[in-house]
Amino acid sequence: MPTNISTTATWNERSAAKKKSVLNGVPAKFIHGSLEFRVDDITAVLDIPSKLLTEEELSITVLDATTVVAAIAKKNYSCVQVLDAFTHRAAIAHKLLNCCLEFRYGDARAEAERLDAHYRETGKLVGPLHGLPISVKDQCRIVGTETTCGFVDGIGRVDTEDSVLVDILKRAGAIIFVKTNLSIGCFWGETINNVIGHTSNPFNRSFSCGGSSGGEGALLGMHGSPMGVGSDLGGSIRSPSAYQGLWGLRPSTGRIPYYKMLNSMEGNEIVESVAGPMSHSPESLELFVRTVADSQPWLHDPKCHPLPWREHEFRTVTMGGRKLRIGLMSWDGYVLPQPPIRRAMNEVVEKLTAAGHEIVPWRVDQKKALSLLTRAFTCDGRGDHDRTIARSGEPDLNLFFRSSQRPDTLLENWALAMERNDFRAEVLEQWNATADENGAPIDVYLTPVNPSVCPKHGDYKRVRYLGYTGTANCLDFTACTIPVSFVDPEKDLADAEDGAHDAQGNKIPSPVSDLDRAIRNNYRPEIYGGLPLTVQIVGRRLEEEKVLGIAQTIRQLL
Amino acid sequence: MPTNISTTATWNERSAAKKKSVLNGVPAKFIHGSLEFRVDDITAVLDIPSKLLTEEELSITVLDATTVVAAIAKKNYSCVQVLDAFTHRAAIAHKLLNCCLEFRYGDARAEAERLDAHYRETGKLVGPLHGLPISVKDQCRIVGTETTCGFVDGIGRVDTEDSVLVDILKRAGAIIFVKTNLSIGCFWGETINNVIGHTSNPFNRSFSCGGSSGGEGALLGMHGSPMGVGSDLGGSIRSPSAYQGLWGLRPSTGRIPYYKMLNSMEGNEIVESVAGPMSHSPESLELFVRTVADSQPWLHDPKCHPLPWREHEFRTVTMGGRKLRIGLMSWDGYVLPQPPIRRAMNEVVEKLTAAGHEIVPWRVDQKKALSLLTRAFTCDGRGDHDRTIARSGEPDLNLFFRSSQRPDTLLENWALAMERNDFRAEVLEQWNATADENGAPIDVYLTPVNPSVCPKHGDYKRVRYLGYTGTANCLDFTACTIPVSFVDPEKDLADAEDGAHDAQGNKIPSPVSDLDRAIRNNYRPEIYGGLPLTVQIVGRRLEEEKVLGIAQTIRQLL
Repeated sequence: MPTNISTTATWNERSAAKKKSVLNGVPAKFIHGSLEFRVDDITAVLDIPSKLLTEEELSITVLDATTVVAAIAKKNYSCVQVLDAFTHRAAIAHKLLNCCLEFRYGDARAEAERLDAHYRETGKLVGPLHGLPISVKDQCRIVGTETTCGFVDGIGRVDTEDSVLVDILKRAGAIIFVKTNLSIGCFWGETINNVIGHTSNPFNRSFSCGGSSGGEGALLGMHGSPMGVGSDLGGSIRSPSAYQGLWGLRPSTGRIPYYKMLNSMEGNEIVESVAGPMSHSPESLELFVRTVADSQPWLHDPKCHPLPWREHEFRTVTMGGRKLRIGLMSWDGYVLPQPPIRRAMNEVVEKLTAAGHEIVPWRVDQKKALSLLTRAFTCDGRGDHDRTIARSGEPDLNLFFRSSQRPDTLLENWALAMERNDFRAEVLEQWNATADENGAPIDVYLTPVNPSVCPKHGDYKRVRYLGYTGTANCLDFTACTIPVSFVDPEKDLADAEDGAHDAQGNKIPSPVSDLDRAIRNNYRPEIYGGLPLTVQIVGRRLEEEKVLGIAQTIRQLL
Repeated sequence: MPTNISTTATWNERSAAKKKSVLNGVPAKFIHGSLEFRVDDITAVLDIPSKLLTEEELSITVLDATTVVAAIAKKNYSCVQVLDAFTHRAAIAHKLLNCCLEFRYGDARAEAERLDAHYRETGKLVGPLHGLPISVKDQCRIVGTETTCGFVDGIGRVDTEDSVLVDILKRAGAIIFVKTNLSIGCFWGETINNVIGHTSNPFNRSFSCGGSSGGEGALLGMHGSPMGVGSDLGGSIRSPSAYQGLWGLRPSTGRIPYYKMLNSMEGNEIVESVAGPMSHSPESLELFVRTVADSQPWLHDPKCHPLPWREHEFRTVTMGGRKLRIGLMSWDGYVLPQPPIRRAMNEVVEKLTAAGHEIVPWRVDQKKALSLLTRAFTCDGRGDHDRTIARSGEPDLNLFFRSSQRPDTLLENWALAMERNDFRAEVLEQWNATADENGAPIDVYLTPVNPSVCPKHGDYKRVRYLGYTGTANCLDFTACTIPVSFVDPEKDLADAEDGAHDAQGNKIPSPVSDLDRAIRNNYRPEIYGGLPLTVQIVGRRLEEEKVLGIAQTIRQLL
């Protein structure tokens, strides 16, 4: 439920009202007063729900999205049962992690009851997502809720229309049940803002959940939702997915509708933010993309391309055991991933090789990608950010932006657009050049999501490197995270102090920059134990079917 | 052949060199010294080629693109014969109309000989355009030629690479044989520049050929080329097509590659220029789009979408006689088309109705489209145009741009991008709302190309109204011109002087603005006789197959 506070109140009053209102409308039985949010507790909170949920709630909330909808279809559970189970678990997650911004339990419950009645009376499901609870990053407008995009300015303003994506998900039978926390303006890889503060990682609450879709990451990491909607401009879906061991898809622009979602720097088209799903299995991501693509979003969002789900592209890589050609970029030449990530990459490569797939060396110029991306992110000299925080008077968090920078002129910005085109074209030709004797280039490339496992709260500034994620954004490529394993302090020892050898004495590239060194030094086996290890695969533009198909193939190998 | 002049020469020297060099390399037997360019001659020059060409050349040059390639495949003609015939006719057209900028006869001849040898030796065609001569607007870069985009700055600079589209056409077997004249920077609906001056209309040389792809229009109007490549930002393919009675397609962005073509305001993505074909039949346009789409241009141009030719979308409207639902916008409420254009619209409507197709009232807010378009065209305050003319020192032609206007700031420009999105979304919903009881919305809408038949040289400024063409650009919709008839001074009488009745005494809407009045008053049956009458159909974004299919259906009715 929205806060009901006036937009003329001070920013502190608005923020206080928001913090207080998050769980409004959630049944009291789902709210456990003993739980409290902490940012300095190193123990995992993942097991707490099992002590507070009923058997039935537990058996529902361990399901992934595809099995949730299958269970409802088979009448194992009603939509109301499913909604209640996830609401209960999400309320626990929020109390522990501060990951939610607004529950809409009343409306969601009414929708669930209507869906149950429909199924009972007609014997028919309303769509492929019948009864699936979905959590959404607080950029999605939903009638009757507030949408902040991480700014205090949104508190107290009630949406009068649904985002196109929300409308499509609802029509397919989904129940949007909660909106999740995000970084201010979606512009920081840690979930922090003046709206309700920051969000912790359920694997270790002294660690960041990542960002900007960090509320989704934390909530899904706790299985408080079977499906989340995030958005990704430089890694905002993939970093939280990596830090919580989730499957997260960064589609290309024009596949999943963004129209009527709230964003910062709206209208900046040099590199665009995209909406995408985060979930517990690649099959769940497939369900989401298949449903949305087949709903013809291009009839409502002018930026969506007329591309229905292309079954053939999907089947080519999932059926019949075709040999895949996988590009491999374990290291981009600028920042070496921490030891456990190198292990995770090796595990995937070994499994792929053992299964007969081909590994092809691959490296894309991430320095160039990052330079273009940085210019795109800062081209307005913080103009949009500053006017938004000025509207509420909320304090400047002084994160990424350089406030002294002069905005680009239009002509400078057009030159940047052309440079971006040239870079994209260069990489396409580089990709074409990987063709084998049959003319088949690589299908996707495998690469780390981040060079860091996951930063402790406050460490993000020191280990921030968008090269591995941001390159896909700069190229508008399709990328999917692949959770592989967890940090094992006994296996994943720190590199030798000379920076030129790993713990086993094998040569590794010496640090090439202060950042490269800082990221390596930040890794501590003794405190990182148990944190998820995640890699990603990256396909060309608008190759969602292929990328999701290969994600499923890899999952079967792991 | 390029001019070979130094880029440090004065603009007059460069322009003089260009004018002199256009026919360089063309065999002397194809150049008729007695012909001269005129802008005040009211007689049609369409018949002149029949007095100068051989029987064989005549029988080749009356073919459209599809029959040219079929004739080569059947060995009725060699590629060299075809190239020579069109080169001869194009040279005549240029002498009469000043429509060309550079013949590349030497290279084209060598390519034709190679193609003939290949076919002779292997029995195989190299691709679906084997031997087809294609003329291109002077934005297409071709190794060894100059590309001006209508600016003196390009004279003397020799291209070192092909545009992606040129490369694709060449690989499909086409022979790019000539580059055609265009308006300065592609920004004016009349073909005029400091490079070689302006171009006349072959139906009446005292009239404009339109623009900005006016060289293509004039050349194709004379059958000096079987297929042309133009570009369209506000009507630049469709106006010359209309003024010369041609079929011209304005595809949506991302279907036909634009990468490495030269343009003005490069990087401006609010509304983008697109490349498209102009030809003598809708089947020829289909051949072009089918060939390019099936060449996978998205592997080389990062702005192209992965959309191969969709035969199903095409067949739905061409096979089986499905009833079409055609939106009708004969008048947009702002500028009433001149009487002969109203007659042409009525003729098409009658034929469609008689064939059992359904006509549905349709009106889109062209004033809003035009306002957005104008802001997009002028947002840099002429910055790009001015720096380009400054490089060569060529004089300002003082056309459309407002030189005193301050460039938009980035934030203003982003707001414009959002307004454009909202407008596009509104029209999509308006389109959805035309659905009949079976849920089928209109397939396309039928509308004039321009409210004026065609302006006399110098009149364009007085009758300039981009509403009917520019709306498709603003919406990124797919549009195809449909040549219907010719002005008949006996049928197409001027409206009554009161402006409220036509010549037959039927009520017509009174003029609503000075421009509306000026355009009506500009029509004179006695001097417009014989000029082509052309309308257009407009489909939604990326619906090229459907639009081209319906164009073929309409052609069969006419």
